[in-house]
Formats: sequence, C-alpha cells, structure tokens
Amino acid sequence: MRRLLLAATALATLSPALSPAVAQKGRPDTDAALAGILDQGTNHSEVMVTAQQLSDVIGPRLTNSPAMRRAEAWTQAQFARWGLKNVHKEGFEFGRGWSIERSSVRMLTPRPIQLTAIPIAWTPATNGPLTAPVIVAPMKKVEDFDKWRGKLSGKIVMTTLPDTGDEPDEAPFKRLSSEDLSKLDRFQQPTYDPAALDSRLKRLDYAQKLDAFLKSEGAVAYATMSYRDGKLVSGEGYLFGKGETPALPGVQIAAEDYRRLARLAKTGPAPTLEINSDVRFDDSDSRAYNIIAEIPGSDPKAGYVMAGAHLDSWVAGDGSADNGAGSAMIMEAARILAATGVRPKRTIRFALWAGEEQGILGSMAYVEQHLATRGTSADTAGGRGMQRYYGYSNRWPVTPLPGYKDLAAYFNIDNGSGKLRGLYAERNPAVVPIFREWLAPFASMGATTVALRPTGGTDHVFMQQVGVPGFQFIQDPLDYESRIHHSSIDTFDHLKAADMRQGSIVLASILLNAADADKALPRPPVPTQPVVTDPFAYSDEN
Amino acid sequence: MRRLLLAATALATLSPALSPAVAQKGRPDTDAALAGILDQGTNHSEVMVTAQQLSDVIGPRLTNSPAMRRAEAWTQAQFARWGLKNVHKEGFEFGRGWSIERSSVRMLTPRPIQLTAIPIAWTPATNGPLTAPVIVAPMKKVEDFDKWRGKLSGKIVMTTLPDTGDEPDEAPFKRLSSEDLSKLDRFQQPTYDPAALDSRLKRLDYAQKLDAFLKSEGAVAYATMSYRDGKLVSGEGYLFGKGETPALPGVQIAAEDYRRLARLAKTGPAPTLEINSDVRFDDSDSRAYNIIAEIPGSDPKAGYVMAGAHLDSWVAGDGSADNGAGSAMIMEAARILAATGVRPKRTIRFALWAGEEQGILGSMAYVEQHLATRGTSADTAGGRGMQRYYGYSNRWPVTPLPGYKDLAAYFNIDNGSGKLRGLYAERNPAVVPIFREWLAPFASMGATTVALRPTGGTDHVFMQQVGVPGFQFIQDPLDYESRIHHSSIDTFDHLKAADMRQGSIVLASILLNAADADKALPRPPVPTQPVVTDPFAYSDEN
Repeated sequence: MRRLLLAATALATLSPALSPAVAQKGRPDTDAALAGILDQGTNHSEVMVTAQQLSDVIGPRLTNSPAMRRAEAWTQAQFARWGLKNVHKEGFEFGRGWSIERSSVRMLTPRPIQLTAIPIAWTPATNGPLTAPVIVAPMKKVEDFDKWRGKLSGKIVMTTLPDTGDEPDEAPFKRLSSEDLSKLDRFQQPTYDPAALDSRLKRLDYAQKLDAFLKSEGAVAYATMSYRDGKLVSGEGYLFGKGETPALPGVQIAAEDYRRLARLAKTGPAPTLEINSDVRFDDSDSRAYNIIAEIPGSDPKAGYVMAGAHLDSWVAGDGSADNGAGSAMIMEAARILAATGVRPKRTIRFALWAGEEQGILGSMAYVEQHLATRGTSADTAGGRGMQRYYGYSNRWPVTPLPGYKDLAAYFNIDNGSGKLRGLYAERNPAVVPIFREWLAPFASMGATTVALRPTGGTDHVFMQQVGVPGFQFIQDPLDYESRIHHSSIDTFDHLKAADMRQGSIVLASILLNAADADKALPRPPVPTQPVVTDPFAYSDEN
Repeated sequence: MRRLLLAATALATLSPALSPAVAQKGRPDTDAALAGILDQGTNHSEVMVTAQQLSDVIGPRLTNSPAMRRAEAWTQAQFARWGLKNVHKEGFEFGRGWSIERSSVRMLTPRPIQLTAIPIAWTPATNGPLTAPVIVAPMKKVEDFDKWRGKLSGKIVMTTLPDTGDEPDEAPFKRLSSEDLSKLDRFQQPTYDPAALDSRLKRLDYAQKLDAFLKSEGAVAYATMSYRDGKLVSGEGYLFGKGETPALPGVQIAAEDYRRLARLAKTGPAPTLEINSDVRFDDSDSRAYNIIAEIPGSDPKAGYVMAGAHLDSWVAGDGSADNGAGSAMIMEAARILAATGVRPKRTIRFALWAGEEQGILGSMAYVEQHLATRGTSADTAGGRGMQRYYGYSNRWPVTPLPGYKDLAAYFNIDNGSGKLRGLYAERNPAVVPIFREWLAPFASMGATTVALRPTGGTDHVFMQQVGVPGFQFIQDPLDYESRIHHSSIDTFDHLKAADMRQGSIVLASILLNAADADKALPRPPVPTQPVVTDPFAYSDEN
C-alpha cells in the first residue's frame, strides 16, 4: 500500500512530458521507505561483497558447471539469510556440466612460445599433451569443407581466417553524456522476416557439422581466433546438450598468437602446437536452475512484479560484469527492501536466471512454466540451445497461461556495472510517463531517461515477446562492450562500486513503485504473428 | 657529392623559417636518387618482410639470449646480402643470456584458474612445479622490509600493492594532428640536479636487496603485478649481470589476476599458487654485440653519418614495435640506398644496438669505443646495467676520442611503427632550418615538423650528451605507449606497413642529405658539467 510522494522539485529536473493523470496520483507515506532505501543502499551496502563472492570465490558460472551449482546454493542461502521468502530453484532441461581444471597451449616449433588460449566451452579434454602441426584452413560454411577435404589428417585445424591488428581509435571506457542519452530515445520501427530467421536457424548446426567433418577427416583438434585483440579470449562454445558436445578438442587462441601462427604457416614450415586441455564434464544433473526469492505482497490478488538478472556466465573471466554485476544488484535490491521492512501491495519476486549465455534459456523456461506457451514449428521443436533461441521468436500463436496476468512488470539488468541512467520502455508508450515519475526521486543520481525503443539479447526479451511488460535498464556503458563482455578480463576489479550502489538503490525504488502502484502497468495486447515487413525483397538469407 | 634540389613548391608546404643561407645551397643531380629511393621504398619494399623475420621467426630478442644471437647473425647476413660493406659486430661486456622455454602460473585454491603471468627476466627456474601459498606484502623500499620480517617463510611473496582497475577514457590508437604537431615544438629549459641523480642511483640496488631479503626470510618465490591492465604483461627485470641475477624465481602476474589473488588473500585463506618456470641461462658469451654495416663514402676524410635502432627487446611479446620496427626501417633504408647505388660523400653507417632495454648500453658502448670518454664517479664506477645508465649522465668531464668529429650526425628510430612526422632537433637550433629543408621532398608523406626540444630514453641520448649531433624522429604514436610498449602484444600484427614504408623512405632520404651535405651539421660545444638549476631547494631526493 505504500506509494511514493513525488516532490515537485524533483519532477522539475526531469521532463515536461508528465501527464496530468499521472501527476495527480496520490502518494502518501513513502518518505520513510525511500530514505530507508537510500540509507541501506549507501551506508549499509553489501552489493560489492555480493559481487566479490560471485566473482572471486565462486568464480565463473557456466550453466550446470560445479561453480554454477555453488552459486545456486549460495544465492539461495543468501536470500534466505536476508529474510526473503519463498526462496527456491526452478529447473529446466539444459545439458552437460563442464569446467576447466588446467589448460595450456604452446607453440613448440619453430620456437617455444606460451600462447594465450582457452579451451572452447564443452569441448573434450586432450587427456594429456596433444602435439601436432597446424594447418590454416579457414571455413565458415559447409560449402567450404570441400577445399580442405583430404588435407586435415593429423592436424590441428585453424578454422578462422586471420585478420589484421585493430586500431582502437575510440576510448574503451565511456559514460553517457546528456547528448548520448537524448539520442537513445529515437524510435525505430521493427522489422519482421521469418525467412531470414529460418535461414539463420538452418546455419546454426554448422558448428556440429564442422566438428563432424574435422573428425571424419582425421583432424586431431581445432583452433579458432579470438574476436578481440589485445590477448583477450572468451572461449564461447554452444554445443552443450547431451549427445551434441564436440568430438574434437578445440581452443580459442588470442588474436596476436593466432595471427603469428598463421603467418609462420604461410612463410615456412607449419608450426607445431602442444595443447593440454584438462577439462571435466559433470553429467550428474542435466537440469539448469533459476533461483527465485520474494518479498510477499499484502494483497494476494494483486499479482507480482519481478526483477531479474542472469547468474550464469562464460568462463574466460569471472563473469563479474556479465552478469555478476546485475545479479549482485538484484540481490542487493532484495536485501535493501527486506531490510527496510516494506510490505508492498504486490509481491516483489527476484529471479537469477541460468542458461542466458546459451540462448536466454532460463527466462525462456520461466515464460513457458508461468506465463505463456508458443506454438512449435518443424524447424525448432527438437532444437537445443541456440536453435531454441533463434526459433522461439517465430513460434505462433502465443497462448497465455493462467499466471500470465499475475506478472505486472519485469525489470532486467544485464549491461555491466555501469550506473543506471534510465529505462527502455520496450515499445510500450503508456509506461513512458509512469517510468519518468518513478525515476524522479533519485534523478540526482543520474537515472532520468526513458526511451521508448526496445533492447534485445537478454532475459526480458521473451517476456516482452509474449506481451508481458518486460523492461531493461539503460546503463552507462563503461568498457563493457569494448573489452569486458565475455572476455578474460571480466573480473571484479573492473566493476564500479559507486555505480553498483546507485543501481541497487534505483532498482529497489522502481520495484517498490511498481509493487505499490494503484494500477498494474499498461500491457500491450497478446502478440500475434506480425506481417512480413518487406514481402517483395530478395536477400542472401533466402 | 650528391645534393638535393629543393623545389620551391615543396618548400612552400613547410615553414617560412628557412634561412637564406640554407636556401641558397646548390643541389644538382639528385632527382634520380630521390625517385630511386621512392621506387625502392614502395614498389620493392622489404621492410615488412624484415620485420616479420625479426618478430615471428627470430622472436623476442633479449640481449644475450639465443634469439638475440640468431638476430645478430641474421641481420649481418642480410646486410651483406644487400651489398652493404664493412658488416661486422662490436662487442661489449653485458651479462647473462636468458630465455623462457615454458611457463605456467596457476591458482590451485580456493579454485583452479590458469593465470596470465610471465617469468621476470633473469630470474631462475623453478625446476618443476613450485606450490606455495601467497602472502600480500607490498614493499617498495628497504624500510618496508621490517614490517614483513618473520612472516614470509615458505611463501610466494606478492610485493606490489594492488591498485584498482583502470578506466581507459582515451583512445589507445592515435595519430598526430596538425595541432598536436604544433604543440611539440615548445621548448622547455633543461634542469640539472646531480643530488637527485645520485639519490635515484642509490635506490637502484633495491631489487637486489629485496631479492636477498626474501631469500634470507625463506620465501620461495615472488610475484609482482603488471603495470598495465587488460591481461598484458611485460616481464621486465634488470638483474642481468654475472653474479647478480636473482636468487628467487619471480613472476609478473596480469593485473586482473594479481588483484583477484590479493582480494582472496584479504577475505579468506591465502590462495595457493603453482609456478612452473622453465627458463634457461646461457653463459657461453657474456658480451653483447652491436651490429654495424656501411655504404662507403667517396671522401675518406669526410667522416660518416649514422642511423641506428636497438635490435634487442623484452620477451613478453616479439619485440615487434620495440624495436623490430625501428631495426627494420634502419635495415630497409640501408637496402634502399644500396639498391639505388648511391655513392655519397660521407660514409653512411647503420647500427643495430644491443642492451638498450637495460640502460641504453649498446650505444653507450659505441660512445665509449668511438666517440668520447666520461669521467668516473665512486657511485657508478662499479655499477652495472641501470646503475651505469643513471650514473653515466653525471660523469665529468667529457673527453673526445680521435673519432669524435668523424660522426657528423646520428639518427635514431625507436618510437614504434608509426610513420615519421619529423625530427627532434635536440637543443641544436642551427639544424632546425637544415632539417626542414631535408624533409621537404617527402613532405606530402607527412614528415614536416622539426621541434627544437630533446627526447630521451633511447640510443641517441648518450651521443647527444657528449656533443655529437644525435637525433630522434617524431613518429605517429599509434598505440605504442598505450598498450604495445614492452607488452605481450608487441607483435607483428600491430605494426603498420604503410607507415614503415614511409619511415624507410624518409630515413633514406635524410641520410643521403646528411651524407652529401656541403658542410657537416652544426655541432654543439663539448658539454661541460652544468650548474645546478635550483641549488636552494630541498627535496625528497636528498
């Protein structure tokens, strides 16, 4: 029943776009709650302690890996310790567990060099040092295989075409200026092309076909080049299902080291590599788990609002910015709200998702379990992982489940540790003035912008796509995209503590607003299949 | 006898500062030579082939290492193949050879991580895996030892105070704009404070004292933190003399990995590391060698001009920009001039220096062998390496040797692979208009600026300090200082081919001008000890 008092002075620092209807809402009895949030989020902040635990102690949390299992246990225990209710995990079928115990890639000839490299996720162990010459055999589609047939036996196959060194003429670390923020709010109309989606989907089995081709040719391992310069690696791999993990050991090599190998192979005898990939599979449980915790609402019929972030990560770094930061801010908002003793009208649910990095699979499972079903298609029904991800958006019709309307609003954090600068309204125009009002009390902390446009690639997407009001925060970019995201320097020291404290406070405040609002947020209609945007066009995709 | 015809149009693109005396010089018979340089330097360029050989095939060239020995042999053979004369090497006492065969640093507990790290140059091998807990014991002066006495036994001692992650808000890759270039030519008066020099010198034995302290305390190894973020390491170490290399194995750990260790050690049980440092000493020859090659002059009494770059490097990368690039441009200018068949008045000598990274020791040896002696001091007489470097500038008097005046001008390249944008005139005002004239023919390639001010830190310095006209080129910075210099990504793929072709052409042209000039370049007086700039001041140094 708590509502927020909107001070006229705070409002003035925002935009003139507030509608009279919004501004007229009564908002008694909230000063104490907001002040309590600010006190907890600053003077008693635990967000960096949480992030350090996830980053340093637990470490990178590849879905179903032993570290992710530790994270599942620790986060539930922590939610319970803070007084959250209904703490539990919800499973969904995922695939194999995998972790790196030790790894080394060395060039032995023409001279010894310790290379920077990482086993590609879910590739098998070498079972001791594997020594073989390389061959540079760039391939990116099935049609490329013929060129290399009969030439790969006994080789470590370098499958990426080496490029040249980058010229980083923009600053890697950046905050959003007022001008940047104003540019964010320019709406672009969506496009829809199911043929392109289908074509993309059909290419997704390329990694499996390549693995099978290399195996059948007698290659002993393969190597790809990191897509970042500067000795950063990521080790991303997407063949994680039971029965579909790769047959051959694979390593991703730093761009500088990969290019050197390729030059040497071109100008002299092929270099010999020694790969020692001591990786471990864990098939004790093929299910992945989302972690759920709640602050119960006072009105059991009022439904719930939810905030979430994915807890899983890649393994080259510690998954600190992607998405230990978001997870820690979600947990900290939960702690703050629990500590302030709020009793909102609607339940506030917190979710830490699994399987995001392999196709937003954790929140997809939540949609399927709680919100709506989507039709199947021949292309996607049996697919796993990325196939499911790409196919999911193109499955019709959307059929709401009984819990569909209970979820009044979902807020996601997944853009690194930069402070929150506002919200993407995700093509839901009616929420724009409401979000502006909710952001007002902490406007001086920098979260002021509401942009109508959508964002993709993370856990609000499948909710938004079935018509649930799902939103993502605008964040200062820092160096997240430029060098941290998925890379070997996604570590705790690149998180920004003041930003994460701000984010926790703003999130807690937004959640309380959403949970206490007189009315649930305006909802879009249940989506139906859009018309093809440009049915006259030919493209490479089809 | 060749001289350059200065076209009025080319002159107009430069500066109005040309003196009438310079402009009146007659310059017949040079069109063919310049056009030949341009043709060789573009259509027949070998500069990148040379750089690739030095970078990829030979690899990093730590002075006296096996790779440096290969580079000494290959560069001499290459000079001879191109028709250079008097190709030979000149030795000077240096110290031990050292190279890395294999290395690995892992965190074993609280969880396994393969760390990014490199053995510190000239530290001993571990002779198999060395496993021990870490202790964070930041020390940077002898007075810090007491705090840690009795606490280091059996430990891997982390001696750097961990800082926080960087915020790189400037573009790493940069070219000089016209405005940048105009700012370069602002002269600052030099300062002189022998007390500060002496004090600095006295602190140089700190590394030895730390090593002895750690050894006496029973520590088993030590670890430092890389001074660059982003998983870049350098492995610099300066105890290379016979009898002075470290007693304990030492590794430099990437900042992200070091900080994680330090945080874990602060919040829980000290992590355990496994260091496997398979490094090799080679004491077959303690002398380092400068490589010399010449294009003979037509007038044996006219002396010589010289261009040089240091061939040695650190070992984390391949020594490509520092200073394979400079070495390749020096060699390419030699090849170009030999191929064009020029027969200049003065001999043109090319030098590839050793020991630059340990104190500019190769060109210092050249000064001592050919140009001038400097007085000794009690502080510096017995010192090696960096002690010699810091002490050398403060030894008086300078006494010219018989060959002193034969060296008419020396040009150095050591600022990465960026194109040449002009010359530093090194406090020699009379050369400013002369250099402007010499730069004119290739002004359209971007080398136009002459800045009176000096630069330091490389091989022209000790020549300039004894009164020989020694100069360094202005170069586009690219990403040399920001991330390449001494780091693990100092690799061939970060060299810029068009820039290095330009540099070779401009250098060849400048050398031909200098070798053919009617008069030798104006020389400064033989330096005598300066007066102390501010004899009234107290400082931390004394």
